[in-house]
Amino acid sequence: MSTLPEQLREMESHHSIFESALRRLPLPVCTVFRSPDQPVPVRFAASDKILRTPDNAIVARSFPLSIEASGNAVLVPTPSDAPPVKGKRVAVLFSGGPAAGGHNVVAGIRRILGDGNTLLGVTPGPKGLIKGAFFEITDDAIASYLNTGGFDFLGTDRTKIKTDAQFRKVKENCVEYGIDAIIIIGGDDSNTNAAILAEYLFKDAKPDGSGVQVIGVPKTIDGDLQVKGFLPISFGFDTATKIYSEMVGNILQDTRSSLKYWHFIKLMGRSASHVTLEVALQTKPAVALVSEEVAEKKQSLSSIVDQIARAVVARARKAMNHGVVLVPEGLIEFIPEIHYLIVELNDVLAHNEKEFSRLHDSARLIFIQNKLSSENARLLASLPDYIVNQLLTDRDSHGNLQVSLIPTEQLLIDMVARYVREIDAGIPFAAQSHFFGYEGRCGAPTRFDAAYTYNLGLTAASLVLDGRTGYMASVTNLTDGGHPIAIPLTGLLQIERRQGQDEFVIRKALVEMNSPAMRYFASRRGDWADDDHFSSPGPRQMWGPAARQQPITVALNSNSDSLEFTIGEAGTEDRGQRTEDRALTAFAS
Amino acid sequence: MSTLPEQLREMESHHSIFESALRRLPLPVCTVFRSPDQPVPVRFAASDKILRTPDNAIVARSFPLSIEASGNAVLVPTPSDAPPVKGKRVAVLFSGGPAAGGHNVVAGIRRILGDGNTLLGVTPGPKGLIKGAFFEITDDAIASYLNTGGFDFLGTDRTKIKTDAQFRKVKENCVEYGIDAIIIIGGDDSNTNAAILAEYLFKDAKPDGSGVQVIGVPKTIDGDLQVKGFLPISFGFDTATKIYSEMVGNILQDTRSSLKYWHFIKLMGRSASHVTLEVALQTKPAVALVSEEVAEKKQSLSSIVDQIARAVVARARKAMNHGVVLVPEGLIEFIPEIHYLIVELNDVLAHNEKEFSRLHDSARLIFIQNKLSSENARLLASLPDYIVNQLLTDRDSHGNLQVSLIPTEQLLIDMVARYVREIDAGIPFAAQSHFFGYEGRCGAPTRFDAAYTYNLGLTAASLVLDGRTGYMASVTNLTDGGHPIAIPLTGLLQIERRQGQDEFVIRKALVEMNSPAMRYFASRRGDWADDDHFSSPGPRQMWGPAARQQPITVALNSNSDSLEFTIGEAGTEDRGQRTEDRALTAFAS
Repeated sequence: MSTLPEQLREMESHHSIFESALRRLPLPVCTVFRSPDQPVPVRFAASDKILRTPDNAIVARSFPLSIEASGNAVLVPTPSDAPPVKGKRVAVLFSGGPAAGGHNVVAGIRRILGDGNTLLGVTPGPKGLIKGAFFEITDDAIASYLNTGGFDFLGTDRTKIKTDAQFRKVKENCVEYGIDAIIIIGGDDSNTNAAILAEYLFKDAKPDGSGVQVIGVPKTIDGDLQVKGFLPISFGFDTATKIYSEMVGNILQDTRSSLKYWHFIKLMGRSASHVTLEVALQTKPAVALVSEEVAEKKQSLSSIVDQIARAVVARARKAMNHGVVLVPEGLIEFIPEIHYLIVELNDVLAHNEKEFSRLHDSARLIFIQNKLSSENARLLASLPDYIVNQLLTDRDSHGNLQVSLIPTEQLLIDMVARYVREIDAGIPFAAQSHFFGYEGRCGAPTRFDAAYTYNLGLTAASLVLDGRTGYMASVTNLTDGGHPIAIPLTGLLQIERRQGQDEFVIRKALVEMNSPAMRYFASRRGDWADDDHFSSPGPRQMWGPAARQQPITVALNSNSDSLEFTIGEAGTEDRGQRTEDRALTAFAS
Repeated sequence: MSTLPEQLREMESHHSIFESALRRLPLPVCTVFRSPDQPVPVRFAASDKILRTPDNAIVARSFPLSIEASGNAVLVPTPSDAPPVKGKRVAVLFSGGPAAGGHNVVAGIRRILGDGNTLLGVTPGPKGLIKGAFFEITDDAIASYLNTGGFDFLGTDRTKIKTDAQFRKVKENCVEYGIDAIIIIGGDDSNTNAAILAEYLFKDAKPDGSGVQVIGVPKTIDGDLQVKGFLPISFGFDTATKIYSEMVGNILQDTRSSLKYWHFIKLMGRSASHVTLEVALQTKPAVALVSEEVAEKKQSLSSIVDQIARAVVARARKAMNHGVVLVPEGLIEFIPEIHYLIVELNDVLAHNEKEFSRLHDSARLIFIQNKLSSENARLLASLPDYIVNQLLTDRDSHGNLQVSLIPTEQLLIDMVARYVREIDAGIPFAAQSHFFGYEGRCGAPTRFDAAYTYNLGLTAASLVLDGRTGYMASVTNLTDGGHPIAIPLTGLLQIERRQGQDEFVIRKALVEMNSPAMRYFASRRGDWADDDHFSSPGPRQMWGPAARQQPITVALNSNSDSLEFTIGEAGTEDRGQRTEDRALTAFAS
């Protein structure tokens, strides 16, 4: 028997007891893929579901080839006796921030491509596609990444392919490396990029006149890539929200144990508040702000502060000097008065970039103040220095304000403290702030994300073998066995003004006020503010009775009657047992 | 079947799917307690192990009654046919910061006291003991808290019982409520308080001349309450470090996925670096600082920064612009030059409290500078404002600097950035900072902490029924069935200067440079800095193959040959199975 130090050495590099057991977890497949041990590619046919946006006509002019082929119809599986496709060379890449389950997408793709086709990994992300950095993905390599979190198998980056030179470079690399198809695993921006690339590479990409197919896979922990009825959720959302929920649940437990703190917790999610809503439904805190509601109700910053301060005071009068406030990362952009300020700031900064960048910090505020409308100049002047500084800092590569850097949670604490003092100086208000972000992106995927992503991979590769391009893979009917479909990307595109220019975008799915999830939250939050009703989904369980839960928001919005997801096991009485018993031996060569 | 919204209502208030399943997890007991279903109290006898500290003689003068009775001998179980003790009224309280497993200590106590004795909960903490706030703990109440994290069943506070009036009040409450024994669940300070209270209440506490017994239970996530050979670890450490390790593991995974950030992660642990060492052994980051090593090697702040900057540069030269640096919360106090500054500051602040508190912020620095030695005044002046401000802020109720408020991680980032620029301005260095603290204190206890605390509770209650006072409960032999023992608190006491006064303390157990855990870490960290070797224990698993791991530091330091702990199951081939099969029905009335 080896000594403990020897055992510890063997546990390095992703071989902890947990990680080693994780790789052996079985993965269920939608019934249409037939067998978990030997899944088969599915063929697709157009359904009568046609996607459209208000900008359909403009999109049609820019994407004629894609739309002529797809008619913007959603694809559904169809029976086929066609012989297996062979000889395809497929490249896969991660794009944008990591999300749990990416490795299982790659595993699913490899599984469907099988020995007859070649899978190449692009390192890292779109940058690798431009550079031409490919390597062949083997079953052995996949076996060691199966069910693990992160994107470290391939790496990722945020390069947006947009210049003519970049597009040409991608095309040249496809020719040089004999690439027949590219699968882009990414969020809304990356899938928009996939749509543009699909059109660009539709035909004549290679000397023989053939094109290169492009397929997207919906990833983002923010959960803002959703298509009602067709894409229940982007992958990574479930894992991230369960990680945050455990942390929030632990802190809620701490508030009632220590009896002296309010915790203001900012949660990642650049624009939409899906993450915050999900975490609120999982944990039941005293207050959870939903950015979309703030925008809809045109709440001012001071009315939000007032709302929190009232909860603090009401609980204090019941001797509860503790609580938790959840703050969506993007909140500040959704407060109408701040939104207008940011829109004008974005525009002013985009148009005065050079001049602005040459100025010293102290001169920047004055320079900007003079360019702003008087109303916005006044608002900017009223904000604390640390907020102003953030509003004036650099934008990301998409021209967006880096809202994650704005200490909204601290701003709220400072303002709530002042309000509470004004209402009743005798009320104790001690607060701690947190930001949960990075820790949620790369955790080991939940059983839900692990199964969902594997089936997204099976679907994406099936689309490639079926000769499709310009689609995003999806799996619906998550409590009824799972149903792989394909969404025409052009059916999702709209026009949005960014950095002073009109651009095609897949509009982020926001929390809808009349969605079942939001309505359920609204019906319960009053009680949660009045008294402690908190609970926690606990640390993600990979084994045992708590391992098979889909997100609450997804379950509510899809009218499920249970939190339990069932992929590939619909209608089987003993489905839990069967899945556990059947080892996934595919990659354990 | 109920609708999903109805199911969600039922999951409120600690009834998530996870939490409901958690309560049904079986708890093993050390063999000497005989049966997990019907554990029996053990009797104790003095062993030949006598505890002593350098201050033994002084302690003996202040604790004559306790030492006369105990002789500072460690107690071990002894066979006995004595009839069960009945009619005792026992009070239990939490003291200090929460830690996972506290509820199971209470459950273990209740289980041993049985129907023949009464258990009273004190709310909250020592403050409740002074106020006289007691309620009777029923089996039903315990059933709903079994295996859950936090101290919310009773609440906790940090009141230190020290004035004559406070001691008298405690005695009066014992008389009024007929309390025969008090069990204090707390850390080093709380157990010191337990020792003092035990002596004070040793006899003549009640009209009939009898005393009130006081028993301590070792709690603290910091892990700094350890007694070599007699107390392997304080409870809560395993859960906290596994929570932090999952987060750190997720972030390590993110660094290698996103390929662009260094993350500086400060970890809770006021003085000792046990938490950081354990998390480092679990996750294998590029750099992990150990405060005790910094002190031992007399490292200056700039030499620490230099060490990190070298790792950044070396990795950058291998195109690895990412990594993780673990920073123990108490680091800054262990840097000798800063330590001397803080010692003098503590003294100056303690002696000039009133005058200092009347000054404005701007005047405070000048006031302090004039009181300091010229060397320390110079050092203070050289530090950035945000550090100086923290060094001058209020102390906690024990007169300690609130090191958790010092942004050491940001100080290191700022200084490393400067060093790296000086070495090679072309090296990218982008950093994120984190502080993991509160999220680790109240999570659901690991299987290790759940079992350990339950057996600590069985031990503490057995000591009460055996008529003992002034002892701390402990369980040793954690990979060999578990062995309950009792440590005489007076055998741990030493003298320490606090707020300018000599006080009795249980000295915090620090990381020892020649301990097996530290030596193993030192042997591996070079490789971990050179290249990514990280892994993660994963989210705490309550079921399945990864559920039964003790802390790595504890396993190494106790020369275990495995990470698997075995309480109550030594020598049984099918122990895992047996434990799982046997439901704990005790509290499920």
